Amino acid sequence: MKKVGIVMGSDSDLPIIQKGVDMLRALDIPFEVHVYSAHRTPVEARDFALNARENGFGALICAAGMAAHLAGAIAANTTLPVIGIPCKGGMMDGLDALLATVQMPTGIPVATVAINGAANAALLAAQIIAVEDAELARKLDDKRKADAAAVLAKDAGILERL
Amino acid sequence: MKKVGIVMGSDSDLPIIQKGVDMLRALDIPFEVHVYSAHRTPVEARDFALNARENGFGALICAAGMAAHLAGAIAANTTLPVIGIPCKGGMMDGLDALLATVQMPTGIPVATVAINGAANAALLAAQIIAVEDAELARKLDDKRKADAAAVLAKDAGILERL
Amino acid sequence: MKKVGIVMGSDSDLPIIQKGVDMLRALDIPFEVHVYSAHRTPVEARDFALNARENGFGALICAAGMAAHLAGAIAANTTLPVIGIPCKGGMMDGLDALLATVQMPTGIPVATVAINGAANAALLAAQIIAVEDAELARKLDDKRKADAAAVLAKDAGILERL
Amino acid sequence: MKKVGIVMGSDSDLPIIQKGVDMLRALDIPFEVHVYSAHRTPVEARDFALNARENGFGALICAAGMAAHLAGAIAANTTLPVIGIPCKGGMMDGLDALLATVQMPTGIPVATVAINGAANAALLAAQIIAVEDAELARKLDDKRKADAAAVLAKDAGILERL
Amino acid sequence: MKKVGIVMGSDSDLPIIQKGVDMLRALDIPFEVHVYSAHRTPVEARDFALNARENGFGALICAAGMAAHLAGAIAANTTLPVIGIPCKGGMMDGLDALLATVQMPTGIPVATVAINGAANAALLAAQIIAVEDAELARKLDDKRKADAAAVLAKDAGILERL
Amino acid sequence: MKKVGIVMGSDSDLPIIQKGVDMLRALDIPFEVHVYSAHRTPVEARDFALNARENGFGALICAAGMAAHLAGAIAANTTLPVIGIPCKGGMMDGLDALLATVQMPTGIPVATVAINGAANAALLAAQIIAVEDAELARKLDDKRKADAAAVLAKDAGILERL
Amino acid sequence: MKKVGIVMGSDSDLPIIQKGVDMLRALDIPFEVHVYSAHRTPVEARDFALNARENGFGALICAAGMAAHLAGAIAANTTLPVIGIPCKGGMMDGLDALLATVQMPTGIPVATVAINGAANAALLAAQIIAVEDAELARKLDDKRKADAAAVLAKDAGILERL
Amino acid sequence: MKKVGIVMGSDSDLPIIQKGVDMLRALDIPFEVHVYSAHRTPVEARDFALNARENGFGALICAAGMAAHLAGAIAANTTLPVIGIPCKGGMMDGLDALLATVQMPTGIPVATVAINGAANAALLAAQIIAVEDAELARKLDDKRKADAAAVLAKDAGILERL
Repeated sequence: MKKVGIVMGSDSDLPIIQKGVDMLRALDIPFEVHVYSAHRTPVEARDFALNARENGFGALICAAGMAAHLAGAIAANTTLPVIGIPCKGGMMDGLDALLATVQMPTGIPVATVAINGAANAALLAAQIIAVEDAELARKLDDKRKADAAAVLAKDAGILERL
Repeated sequence: MKKVGIVMGSDSDLPIIQKGVDMLRALDIPFEVHVYSAHRTPVEARDFALNARENGFGALICAAGMAAHLAGAIAANTTLPVIGIPCKGGMMDGLDALLATVQMPTGIPVATVAINGAANAALLAAQIIAVEDAELARKLDDKRKADAAAVLAKDAGILERL
Repeated sequence: MKKVGIVMGSDSDLPIIQKGVDMLRALDIPFEVHVYSAHRTPVEARDFALNARENGFGALICAAGMAAHLAGAIAANTTLPVIGIPCKGGMMDGLDALLATVQMPTGIPVATVAINGAANAALLAAQIIAVEDAELARKLDDKRKADAAAVLAKDAGILERL
Repeated sequence: MKKVGIVMGSDSDLPIIQKGVDMLRALDIPFEVHVYSAHRTPVEARDFALNARENGFGALICAAGMAAHLAGAIAANTTLPVIGIPCKGGMMDGLDALLATVQMPTGIPVATVAINGAANAALLAAQIIAVEDAELARKLDDKRKADAAAVLAKDAGILERL
Repeated sequence: MKKVGIVMGSDSDLPIIQKGVDMLRALDIPFEVHVYSAHRTPVEARDFALNARENGFGALICAAGMAAHLAGAIAANTTLPVIGIPCKGGMMDGLDALLATVQMPTGIPVATVAINGAANAALLAAQIIAVEDAELARKLDDKRKADAAAVLAKDAGILERL
Repeated sequence: MKKVGIVMGSDSDLPIIQKGVDMLRALDIPFEVHVYSAHRTPVEARDFALNARENGFGALICAAGMAAHLAGAIAANTTLPVIGIPCKGGMMDGLDALLATVQMPTGIPVATVAINGAANAALLAAQIIAVEDAELARKLDDKRKADAAAVLAKDAGILERL
Repeated sequence: MKKVGIVMGSDSDLPIIQKGVDMLRALDIPFEVHVYSAHRTPVEARDFALNARENGFGALICAAGMAAHLAGAIAANTTLPVIGIPCKGGMMDGLDALLATVQMPTGIPVATVAINGAANAALLAAQIIAVEDAELARKLDDKRKADAAAVLAKDAGILERL
Repeated sequence: MKKVGIVMGSDSDLPIIQKGVDMLRALDIPFEVHVYSAHRTPVEARDFALNARENGFGALICAAGMAAHLAGAIAANTTLPVIGIPCKGGMMDGLDALLATVQMPTGIPVATVAINGAANAALLAAQIIAVEDAELARKLDDKRKADAAAVLAKDAGILERL
C-alpha cells in the first residue's frame, strides 16, 4: 500500500497531528511523520517532496500555522495530492492559516481541511488511497456506519440528559 | 480510468466550472457534469453520491456558494474523495462559502480549494487518480514544467515592460 | 398544540440546547429533542424532516457548529419553519456557523438566531405557534412584561453598586 | 388569512423588497408595505409594531442596512414573529447589517435570513402562516417540487453548455 | 453644570461602566446612571432620551453589546450628543457591537469610542461640556499633562526591567 | 458661535467631506477646512490642534483612510472634542480606517462616526455646539422633524412603486 | 551602491510593481526585476535568494497575492532584508495576502508594507540602503519636504473647491 | 555599529518587547529602549524620531496595540527604517493593531512584522544593519543554520513522541 507522509512545521503542532496519526493507525495505513519547516529547513522540505512519489508515498499531509506556507512549499515540489491542515495559533483563530493554505494559485492545488482538522486530513488521505484499494474502501464504509450508530445511540438517550 | 464527477449547485456557477472542465479535457480525463442542489434536489444529490463509486468515479468535485452545503452533502453519502470549490457570489467575497465548505466535522472531510478555484479542483482530482496511474502522473509533471517555463519566459522580458 | 422539534448535530451542543428546552418547558410547549447529524446520519435527519408536519410539529429548531449544515439539510426536506442556531465551537467565534446557517439559497429559508441563541430560538418557535394561539400569545406578552420589570428593578438599584 | 407586514428602513431598499413582494403575491398572501425608520420615525415604527397583532398581522418582515436596528426595534414592541433582512450597503458587504440583525439579546428574537434575502423572508413568513393553513402548506410543497424540477431541467442540458 | 447620563443595556455591563463613572467623579462632573434596555424596556429608554435635554443633561453615554442598538435608540429620541460604547460579549470580540453602534444612518450620529472604552466615553462627555466651561477645560489639560508625566516616568525606569 | 474645524488627510477625501460642509452650511455654523496629513505634515497638523481652542473652535472633524491616524494625532494635541471619519479607500472596505480611528487608548478619545459618515460628523459637531446654544438645538430638532416627514412621505406612496 | 531586487509572483502584478520601479528610478537606486513564482519556479526563486547578497543586492522586494508565499520563500533563503507587498486579487480585498505575508514564524522576518504598497516598499528599500549612505539619506529628506509642500499647497486652495 | 531604538507605547507591552531585547543582546547589537506614547507624549516621541539618525540609530522598532499609531508617528519624523510590531490587546486579536500599523500612506513606510513579533522585529533590524556589516551578516547566517539544525533534531525524534 502507498504510504501517507505527514509533515508538521513545528513540533508544537504535535497535539494536533496526533489525531491524524491515530486515524491512520486505526485504518492500518503505513505512514511517516516529519518535522520540516518551509522557512527554517527549506532544503529538507523540498527534498522530501521531490522524492515522495518514488519513495512510495500516495498522499502528503502538511500542518502549519500563521502564514502557513508549508503545504504550498511541499505542493510546489510534487504532483502527489497534498493535504493542508491550517493550525490555530494564538492569533486570529486560525483564519490566517486557513487563507494562507487554501488560496493557492492555479497549477498548485492544496486540498485544505478544517482548522486543526488532522483526523479529517488522515481520512482524506485514506480516501485517496482507497480509490484503487477496495479493501480500504470497505473499511471506510464500515467506519461511516459506526459513526452513524454512535450518533443514533446519543439520540436514543438524549431526553434524560435534559 | 476512473471518471471525475463535477456537481454544481446552480448553473450560475457554470463560468467557474468551465475552467475545471477545460483542465480535465486537457488531461484526457473522463468526467460527468451535473447540476444538483443540496437543498432543492436533495434526493438526486444523495443518489448521485451513494452510487458514485460503483458508477466508476474516482473523485467528485462540488461547487457551491453562500452557505455552500453541496460538497458536505455529497461527502456525507460517499467515501470517495470529495473536492469542494467555494464560489464567490455577490456577497461576502466568498468567505461564507469557504467556511461552509472547509469547516467539516470529523469523519466527513471535504478537500477544499481556493474560492472559485475550479482549475485547481480539477488538477487535484487528476492528482488523486494519478496516484495509481503513472502515465497521468507523467502528464502532470510535464504540465508543471510547462507552467515553470511560462513564468521564466515572462521573467526574461519583464524589464522592457517597465 | 403543535410540537416543537429540536435537533442538535452533536450531543456536545447539549449545554447550549438546555436553555431552549428550559424556555419551552416554562411556556408549557410540547417538544421532542433529537441528535441527528446532517453528515453522519443524513438518512435519519432527512426522514425526521420529511415526516415532521404530519407528526404534529409546528416548528423545528436545529443547532450545529462549524460548517453548520444541519438547519439547511432539515429545511431542504420540509416546508415547516426551520430555526437555525449557529453554535460557537473552539474556532472562529461561531462566525463560520453563522454564515453557514443564514446564507441560504432562495427557496429554502432558515430563520437564524444569534450564535448559541437557544433561548431565543425556543421563543421564536413559541411566537410562531402563538400566531394562532391567543393563550400562548398572552403568555409571551406576560413574559415580556416580566423581563421589563426585571430590567427596571436593576435600574432602581444601580447607583449603590457603583 | 393573517397578513404579512413588510417594513423597510429606507425606500432605497425597495429593489431588495420587491422580490419579497413578488413571492407573497405569487402565494396569494395579503400584505402591507411600509417605510419606517427605527431612527428617523421611531414613534411610527413602534406604533405599527404595538398594534400589529390586533391589526391582523401574522408575521412582520423588516429590512435595513448598516447598523440595522429596524428588526430589533419592531421586535421590541410585539411578540409576533419578526423576520430580519440584513441589507447590503456600500460598506462591509452587509456583514455589519447581518450582525446587527441577528445578534439579539435573550427575550427578543429576530428570525434572520440571508443578506438581501427578501424572497426567503417572504417564504419564511408564508411557512409561519402555513403552520395552521393546510392549503398554503400545499402551495409551498408545490413550489418546492417546481424548484426541484427547474434544477433537474438545468442538469439535463448542462453538458452542451460546456 | 450640565449632567452626563449613562445608560447601560444590562447590569452585566457594570464592570465596564465603572471606569467611566470613576472618570466623571475624578472630574467632578454630575451624572446619572440607568439600566434601560432598548429591547426590553423601549418605553423607558425612549422617555429618558426625549426628556434628557430639559432634565439638564449635556451628553448621554450608552453601553451595549452584541446587536448594540441602545445608543442608536437613544440617539433617535434626542438631539443631544450621544456617545456609544460597544461592549465585548463572549462572541466576535466586540466587532458586532462596534459595527452596530457606529454604522448609523445619516441624521442620527452616535459618537462611538473603542470597544469597552468607558473611560474615554466619559472623557469625551467631559470634553463636550468643557467646550463652554473653561474651568473643566483646564482640568482636562491638567489630566493630559499628568498622563504624559506618567508615561515619561515609565520611560525613565524601563531599562532595568528588561 | 464656536467654529467647527474640518481636517482631511488628503484632498482625495474631498467628495466625502463635501457632505459635511453642506450640513454645516445648512445649519449656519462657521467652519474652516484644512488639508493636513498626520504623516506628511505632522508639524502643521499638531500646530492646528494645539491652537484650536484659543482660535475659537468648538469641535474638530478629521477624515482619513487606511491606517487613519489623523484624528488620533489631532486628539493628542487638544482637549477639544475630536470627531473621526474613517474613509473607505480602495482596500478593506474601510474596516482598516474604522479600527485605526476608534480603538484609541484611554485618555485620548476620538468620537468616531460611520465609514465615510461626513454628514453625521457635521451633525455631531452641531449637537456638541448646541449643548449651550438653544437656537441651534431648535434647528436640530426641526431637522429631525423634517427628516421624519420625508420618511413618512415615502411611506405614503410606497405601495404604487411595488 | 547596493542594488534592490524586485520579484513578482506573476506578471499580472506588473501595474502594482510599476510604482515601486518609478520610485527607485526617481532616487537613482540600481535595481533588478524578476518574475519568479514560489510555487511554479521554486528552484529559480530560491537560487535568486541564495545568491542575492553576493550578487550585490542590499534589499529584496517581493510582491504576491492570495496565499502570498513569495516573500516568505525568498526570506527563507537569505538573511538580507526582505520586504513583502501583499497584492489585492479579486478576493478578500487583499486580507488573505496581507496575513500570508506578515504572519511569519520567528527567525524569518518579512518587512510587510500596505496592500499594493509598492511605492512604499521601494522607499523602505531606499531607507535601508540609506542607513550607510548619507547622500541617499539626504535625498529621502528632500522628498519628505517636497511631499509636505504638496500637501500644504492643497491646503491653501481647498476652500474654493467646496 | 549603528544602534537599534526600541519604543513601546506603554510599559504593558514589556513582555512582548523582551523577546526583541533578548535577540539584540544575543547578536551583540547596541540598543536603547523607550516608553513613548504617540498620543500621551507626542512631543517626546517626535523629538526622539527627529534626532534618531544623528544620535547614531540605524533602525527604529515601535510596538503598540489597538489604533497602533506609534510606528506611523515615529516614521513621520524620520527617514530611518521604522519597524512596526502590532501588539495584541484584549480585543480583536490584534487585527486592529496590524491594520493600523501596516496600511500606511505613500511616502511613509512602516516595515510591519507579525502580531507580537518582537523577535522578528529585532532580527529585521539586525538584517538592516548587516547590509553593510559582513560580520553581523555572518552571525545571522550562523543563526539560520542553528535554527535549521534545531528543527532537524526535532524531526529525528518525532516518531517516538506519537
